[in-house]
Amino acid sequence: MGFFSKDIKTMDDLFVHTLRDIYYAEKQILKNLPKMIDKATNRELKQGFEKHLTETEGHVTRLEQVFEMHGVEAKGVNCPAIDGILKEADEIAGEVDDERVLDAALIAAGQAVEHYEITRYGTLVAWAKELGRSDCAAVLQKNLDEEKATDKKLTDLAASRVNLQAAE
Amino acid sequence: MGFFSKDIKTMDDLFVHTLRDIYYAEKQILKNLPKMIDKATNRELKQGFEKHLTETEGHVTRLEQVFEMHGVEAKGVNCPAIDGILKEADEIAGEVDDERVLDAALIAAGQAVEHYEITRYGTLVAWAKELGRSDCAAVLQKNLDEEKATDKKLTDLAASRVNLQAAE
Repeated sequence: MGFFSKDIKTMDDLFVHTLRDIYYAEKQILKNLPKMIDKATNRELKQGFEKHLTETEGHVTRLEQVFEMHGVEAKGVNCPAIDGILKEADEIAGEVDDERVLDAALIAAGQAVEHYEITRYGTLVAWAKELGRSDCAAVLQKNLDEEKATDKKLTDLAASRVNLQAAE
Repeated sequence: MGFFSKDIKTMDDLFVHTLRDIYYAEKQILKNLPKMIDKATNRELKQGFEKHLTETEGHVTRLEQVFEMHGVEAKGVNCPAIDGILKEADEIAGEVDDERVLDAALIAAGQAVEHYEITRYGTLVAWAKELGRSDCAAVLQKNLDEEKATDKKLTDLAASRVNLQAAE
């Protein structure tokens, strides 16, 4: 975006900008998930990330549907938020050696990613409805529901990791 | 953190690192909230951000209590995630001229900040309990509850903003 222009004039512009923000974010997540799968040692965690990789591919496809329904070009805009979240995930994973501690760090990093997506999709669903695009809202809601389910699964995995250690 | 060392060896190290991450984040939020208060035009939104500024000062104090209870130095570590989220908030606010669209963008930016804090405090509460520090968990839970309440208030404000426009 230009630094000296005021490019966002309407709610529609803001909706499209945010759609492009999450489109860029989903694509960055697609690039980063294989690294997280590789680092995870807990089998359930590894499988959870693998499943989420497939889901994320579906999220990108749904976003492309929404761009088409709304009659705008499917493209990304820079999203410093997801860049920062993923950079932090990468840094922390590089600092941890012990497998169990690394799994705990990866779960936390995964949840930070999910929460970013949850807030953006929540906003996008509300704005789509405001703009009279309940058709777009319905598609975006599907992505939101899957992100919430993944976050919940990560919370459950964190709890089962602790129970597993306590039982040893 | 050093790039060639593995500085986080135990769950305790990971807990302290993440505590320092959110400590840095809260301080950055303290610096950025006055800008958001300044830009907001809706009176309720402005007041909401003002109230949250006071709450954020309290969160910093509570974090300092937790550092002390846990016997470690209260200091921050770089948090690229919050830096990215706040950078994005700043950029988007600079792109919008229309007051109502700007308020909508500010609400969304505020919710992205809250969601980052919610995920970190959720993780910290769980890890504090895992480490047998239910005393620290109880203090961190207070911050978590306030972040969740702020996020809920921003959702309500977003809805009332839409209803207000529809009624005109």
